[in-house]
Amino acid sequence: MTTIGPAEPAPRRRRGRPGYDQPAILRTAIELFNRRGYDATSMGDLARELGLTKPAIYHHVTSKEQLLGEALADALDELTSVVTEASGERDGVSAYQRLREVVRRSVEVLVAHQPSVTLLLRVRGNSEVELAALERRRWLDDRLAALVADAVAEGSLRDNVPPALVSRLLFGMVNSLVEWYRPDGAYDHAVVADAITAIAFDGLARHEAHQV
Amino acid sequence: MTTIGPAEPAPRRRRGRPGYDQPAILRTAIELFNRRGYDATSMGDLARELGLTKPAIYHHVTSKEQLLGEALADALDELTSVVTEASGERDGVSAYQRLREVVRRSVEVLVAHQPSVTLLLRVRGNSEVELAALERRRWLDDRLAALVADAVAEGSLRDNVPPALVSRLLFGMVNSLVEWYRPDGAYDHAVVADAITAIAFDGLARHEAHQV
Repeated sequence: MTTIGPAEPAPRRRRGRPGYDQPAILRTAIELFNRRGYDATSMGDLARELGLTKPAIYHHVTSKEQLLGEALADALDELTSVVTEASGERDGVSAYQRLREVVRRSVEVLVAHQPSVTLLLRVRGNSEVELAALERRRWLDDRLAALVADAVAEGSLRDNVPPALVSRLLFGMVNSLVEWYRPDGAYDHAVVADAITAIAFDGLARHEAHQV
Repeated sequence: MTTIGPAEPAPRRRRGRPGYDQPAILRTAIELFNRRGYDATSMGDLARELGLTKPAIYHHVTSKEQLLGEALADALDELTSVVTEASGERDGVSAYQRLREVVRRSVEVLVAHQPSVTLLLRVRGNSEVELAALERRRWLDDRLAALVADAVAEGSLRDNVPPALVSRLLFGMVNSLVEWYRPDGAYDHAVVADAITAIAFDGLARHEAHQV
């Protein structure tokens, strides 16, 4: 989380070209990677997008892969915090309540860190950095599946769908947000979080229709 | 659907190099576009992947964009058929039943045409071909949202979530399959279709938990 945040005051020698500190370069890189694809984007493309020379970028960043690593860490650090905190056992809090909390807080992370989460969800394992990110995603998936299994075991969730499949589909629905959600669009993130929990936990069908 | 299917018998002059007819080239191109990204893949890359010369590929295909167009048509033609057939009004079939049928048959299309649907879901509108595909996707989205609205209007679905949002989240869950589903993996496509309809329509929570 140290790499993205309010831009620091520009050092004096760059006065007159504000916004080109390391966090700003990272934000533009993530936007470009999502728009054109990571592999198809060169440091030259990034320089052109920023209106900088390539040497000026290398003053701030050692490589394209460093930018990818920092972008993926931004998404993964947040998601790991949410899953660790919300899924952790606490007195008097059922697995069912913790699962609902993970879903709700995951929606908040996706909305607040949409560009870096989008990049994370497109990673295919083409490099060491990508393989390490996939390893961290797998850890998250395992924790989520275990939480679903706990909720089934305590009797809160239906037991006729395998927990690992429930977890994939539930967070597949959550993750699909990155494809269309716009912070300035029709839906507040709380509306989306309410909709997802209503659909996933209580179902779309009205009670009369449950028998259909 | 005419472009993908069993390979036609190879013409006599290509005997000894079976599998390099147009459908086989298309299949390899889709696999490569998904693995490396469409923009990052050149016809030279495709030639290398197939062990062919570039002129040999151009004997079958006029351009990379033609391959993309055929791949996207493969996915879109199937999805359009499903949505048109299953969502169409029929005597004695409720909108709720038609929506469940669309979900179930969409899962079948995703599983049977996973590579081309994966490509479709990654299209960003970078060319005429991609913009036309996005236009066809929008038509499908509108039809699905209208079907959800019909099911709400007939009283089958909860009315406290906007139909367009329900449609996005429901098919977001369906579409998330392309990221992890493997035909030879742990789950048969019928198990996945059952799980999605159970989660989306009836909810994960057991009835005792509905009050939580």
